[in-house]
Amino acid sequence: MINSSNHTDSRRQFLRQAGLAAATVAVAGPAGALPLGAAAPLADSPRKVGFAIVGLGKYATEQMMPAFKESKHCKIVALVSGSPDKAQRLAQEYGVEAKSIYSYQDFDRIKDNPAVDVVYVVLPPALHAEYVVRAAQAGKHVLTEKPMAPSVAECQRMIDACRKAGKQLMVAYRAQFEPFNLDAIARIRKGELGKLRFVTADHGRQVSPTTDKADEWRVVQKLAGGGSLMDIGIYSLNAARYLTGEEPVEVSATESTDRTDPRFKEVEDQVHFTLRFPSGVLATCTSAYSIEGVKRFRAFGSKAYLDLDPATDYYRHRMVIGNADGELTTSMKEGNQFAAMLDHMAECAQQNKTPKTPGEEGLRDIKLILAIYESAKKGRPVKV
Amino acid sequence: MINSSNHTDSRRQFLRQAGLAAATVAVAGPAGALPLGAAAPLADSPRKVGFAIVGLGKYATEQMMPAFKESKHCKIVALVSGSPDKAQRLAQEYGVEAKSIYSYQDFDRIKDNPAVDVVYVVLPPALHAEYVVRAAQAGKHVLTEKPMAPSVAECQRMIDACRKAGKQLMVAYRAQFEPFNLDAIARIRKGELGKLRFVTADHGRQVSPTTDKADEWRVVQKLAGGGSLMDIGIYSLNAARYLTGEEPVEVSATESTDRTDPRFKEVEDQVHFTLRFPSGVLATCTSAYSIEGVKRFRAFGSKAYLDLDPATDYYRHRMVIGNADGELTTSMKEGNQFAAMLDHMAECAQQNKTPKTPGEEGLRDIKLILAIYESAKKGRPVKV
Repeated sequence: MINSSNHTDSRRQFLRQAGLAAATVAVAGPAGALPLGAAAPLADSPRKVGFAIVGLGKYATEQMMPAFKESKHCKIVALVSGSPDKAQRLAQEYGVEAKSIYSYQDFDRIKDNPAVDVVYVVLPPALHAEYVVRAAQAGKHVLTEKPMAPSVAECQRMIDACRKAGKQLMVAYRAQFEPFNLDAIARIRKGELGKLRFVTADHGRQVSPTTDKADEWRVVQKLAGGGSLMDIGIYSLNAARYLTGEEPVEVSATESTDRTDPRFKEVEDQVHFTLRFPSGVLATCTSAYSIEGVKRFRAFGSKAYLDLDPATDYYRHRMVIGNADGELTTSMKEGNQFAAMLDHMAECAQQNKTPKTPGEEGLRDIKLILAIYESAKKGRPVKV
Repeated sequence: MINSSNHTDSRRQFLRQAGLAAATVAVAGPAGALPLGAAAPLADSPRKVGFAIVGLGKYATEQMMPAFKESKHCKIVALVSGSPDKAQRLAQEYGVEAKSIYSYQDFDRIKDNPAVDVVYVVLPPALHAEYVVRAAQAGKHVLTEKPMAPSVAECQRMIDACRKAGKQLMVAYRAQFEPFNLDAIARIRKGELGKLRFVTADHGRQVSPTTDKADEWRVVQKLAGGGSLMDIGIYSLNAARYLTGEEPVEVSATESTDRTDPRFKEVEDQVHFTLRFPSGVLATCTSAYSIEGVKRFRAFGSKAYLDLDPATDYYRHRMVIGNADGELTTSMKEGNQFAAMLDHMAECAQQNKTPKTPGEEGLRDIKLILAIYESAKKGRPVKV
């Protein structure tokens, strides 16, 4: 009998019954105690790992840069921007030296800045390849936002450039460093849901280019490389892969876009897709740019289901596990997924080790996204 | 600002803000106040409408027959069963005369029983056509369980037989008489979610033929006519239609069945499908026989979403409406959907008027189910 409860005691009792107490309670501990491939604490380092932030848009300035203050091993030491005023203001806030502010034109001079260990590219997707390659050529490790790039060729060029430079390349899949998501993966792997049968994942939002400057590039194909699927459907796709732990063998997709809506002259609105995995597990996902926000998934097993809603938000995640007896709302401390991701990148830079979400992970999603577009366009399943 | 709350006051406040107070509060009233095409109270009738129950399985005896006690205008007056002992016991419980107990062989004698107005067929789907046709030929109105029948030809034969007899034929879509579902439809039609963009619906359960006698026929193709899609996926399908208020023009489907599982030698396990509606709305649905139970849907609009989970259970429905400001859990009295459906059938029998869910409604779902199977088999979208 599962009790519906927010209390940690009830949750622990449930976990004990499921024989998962020891392993899983660790996940419920303080932020940073990430059991699944995330960074272990670094030994005392001589100095923090220095990051250059390329692109000072809304996401960078409002979500990601503040997380440096909660990271253990990371420091912003350089800024790259086309807006000198904004860069100077942020440089003061984050203690960045004036000489470490770069424009996009003189970005390559960063090779002479020994304080910069990692370049974090936070530009629209179509610009990722150029700046990742230039960063690698400047001898820096690279962290790039997702989607990695709009084409397989660009992704491959990014991977090759970093390999040639002997530098690490990581794609910023923050949800893979978020404690609720890691706990969900752990529960599925340990069989807490029984045999996994299918996953549903829904990601959507209103794209508002006329009222939100941060959305302007999102409706321009040559900058975004695609519509809702590239931008947020990728969360449904990536979740389907990390929840199942498998790689899909077939995708089927249906698109629906109102092309009279001025937002959708170039990019798509809705893409719904089903992934078939080798085990027989299916993942059925939705992605949309014309709805009130949703970021959720549910994993359905033979004995129980696990619901995370929101699943991939910045905060206020909510996990519910249900079986024939009822539902349990789990209680867990929110962790700073941005800080955990940055600390992992720092560790990989310092030890020159392959990140948990390397360029190859980004490339896999891009290949699948392109196959989903192909399936929707051709009206048939596409083998991958 | 929407407050998360179970209190009716908060809900009323929300409704007022949405300008829906007058119309929708009626829905939140006592069971039976069904605003959307359901039966209006009958004038005082000289006697209750008499029903014959054909098939005394678990669903009939545990869910549906007890609901007669809560109906206003219906009475069980005859039983048709292959188990005389069971029939006699139930006859005593429901006050049915011994002479009004029939076997399947002598069922046609029911034409001479003037107490029987309506025959309610609660047999496995493959037997519906035979008993609906025999009931019509006996001069009775007919209510039949869903799915209507495994083939279009059988559905058409049922419709034709009732038309020829001048009798009404209704398919027992109980969710279309359930107050939460009716409220969801009303909210969508009134634009409370903004412009409807897509629907997701998930229905699944563990089919357990070795431990639950009621599941034995469900894994036999010649009785069930199909697997999870026919039995419970039909709730996802029907909900997609009544929530959108449209008829789909295209279906795309993916099937996944472990044929080494002895339950699935004849019928399918999972079918996931997407319906495309003329307005551009999509409905993405799942159906499965190998998971812990789920019966839920969510409608996604441009301004808000509406979640019903469970959506199509017998009781304990839960509606949540969410927008950019938060979520509202609505509070509403549970109504007896079975009794509401039976009273609607009684009204249609007395007034000889077309039911809200006539044979044509059942036929539409069967055509779509067969198109979904075809799409999954051929690996391409099917126009409907």
